[in-house]
Amino acid sequence: MKTIAYLGPPGTFSHEAAVTWRRRLEPEREKEVEELLACPELPGVVDAVKNHRAMAGILPVENSIEGAVNLTLDLLLEEMELQIIGEVILPINHCLLSQADDINAVREVWSHPQALAQCRRYLAAVLPWAKIKAVTSTAEAAGEALKRPDLAAIASSFAASLYRLPILAQDIQDYSGNKTRFWVVGREAPSLTGPYKTSLVVAAPANRPGTLYTILKDFAEAGINLTRIESRPTKKELGEYLFFIDCEGRCDEAPLNEVLAGLKSRTVLLRILGTYALG
Amino acid sequence: MKTIAYLGPPGTFSHEAAVTWRRRLEPEREKEVEELLACPELPGVVDAVKNHRAMAGILPVENSIEGAVNLTLDLLLEEMELQIIGEVILPINHCLLSQADDINAVREVWSHPQALAQCRRYLAAVLPWAKIKAVTSTAEAAGEALKRPDLAAIASSFAASLYRLPILAQDIQDYSGNKTRFWVVGREAPSLTGPYKTSLVVAAPANRPGTLYTILKDFAEAGINLTRIESRPTKKELGEYLFFIDCEGRCDEAPLNEVLAGLKSRTVLLRILGTYALG
Repeated sequence: MKTIAYLGPPGTFSHEAAVTWRRRLEPEREKEVEELLACPELPGVVDAVKNHRAMAGILPVENSIEGAVNLTLDLLLEEMELQIIGEVILPINHCLLSQADDINAVREVWSHPQALAQCRRYLAAVLPWAKIKAVTSTAEAAGEALKRPDLAAIASSFAASLYRLPILAQDIQDYSGNKTRFWVVGREAPSLTGPYKTSLVVAAPANRPGTLYTILKDFAEAGINLTRIESRPTKKELGEYLFFIDCEGRCDEAPLNEVLAGLKSRTVLLRILGTYALG
Repeated sequence: MKTIAYLGPPGTFSHEAAVTWRRRLEPEREKEVEELLACPELPGVVDAVKNHRAMAGILPVENSIEGAVNLTLDLLLEEMELQIIGEVILPINHCLLSQADDINAVREVWSHPQALAQCRRYLAAVLPWAKIKAVTSTAEAAGEALKRPDLAAIASSFAASLYRLPILAQDIQDYSGNKTRFWVVGREAPSLTGPYKTSLVVAAPANRPGTLYTILKDFAEAGINLTRIESRPTKKELGEYLFFIDCEGRCDEAPLNEVLAGLKSRTVLLRILGTYALG
């Protein structure tokens, strides 16, 4: 049972991340998509892994323009049985997919609200007459473009090849360098070679970012590089936060294991979310 | 011209925050609402202040359950002319508003998706038969409940008194202690007494949270308490972040002014968003 669960429908960036992850594990089985499971919502991806319907699940964690995906952070905090077993970083290149003969024949553009926002200047310059409609995913928009030749979807080239839709224009996003990072969650980490990264959540006793300094000090003095820090509310009191930290190294090897042992004695909450190979 | 702009329609929590702010400035003029300006979107609130149609604007910045309001952080970063001149902290107590004779006569419950999510357990226990519908604001739902007695809105007691809607049940949120913090933005800070807080944005040269430690060190060594730290992407490259920091003290007084002077020479970006009286 090697199913990978992702946020569907088929053709989403999460789907592409699932395919990318499987290719890393098993390069020779590139084309079999029947073992990928599309879930309608993120909690469903987590449930599929928990209930053993999938060996791994794909969760978007941050985008270089939009920032953190808070639901993913909140979900992982609640699920003690799961761990992060890998990461996938995807470039987000938006394309205009349509069966229209050319751009002038496009009357409507559909996509996910974030994709529409990321292509706003392009749409205003090239398709000022088009009716813009927000739908729940880029893949849903692609599915609709299959039915109506006057409609274009903003979606990935991955969606174009999956839905066999012509690409009228590519790289139409206003900001270059747009990337999304996904966590792969599961019950057991695959044996991939390093370098490694560790993700953890920590709450300081006084629950003030002032004490964050003493936590970061331990990492700095051990020479461990932090690659990301993200605060989330404890959901108990305004002004109380948890910190999601990504750092270099394995949680079971020095110097990180020593830093973590020291932190454990001084913090209210310390949870290792996983140690995994860099994406 | 003393207009205060807020995210409407009338009856939202932002509206209540605007009323709360005016009451702090001018306690005797409590009931005059004609100088409050409802804007349909957050960028409109910022524009109203920039274009001198309002002297102040109300922007939600964080909620104790949902976390940061990213759009507010991103908007403030772009608007160099505005500063934070105050803060308002509101308890968020959701109520069930309806003209129905009792709860059993309610067929539909409408509200903002976050309010619905925050009352999910209550709705499942008390109104399992009701059709749930998400709309763009709690106030829009209250307006609809005025028209249809089989419909209940989840909104504030403030909205109840504004729309003259009966309160069928109050404090129905699943988590207690739910609060939202708002920033008041304007061109000039009013003369309120302290204690004071300062909000700033900083980007470290290496653009790695590892260097965040050296920034926090300056604050810690000067004995300045940080009350909040929030990261946002630079929108240029995955893994590059800006940090929104709230700390105690005034930016023009020691020890904070000395820390800021030191930081200025070592950081790529340092912007003071404002010094204001605690809410």
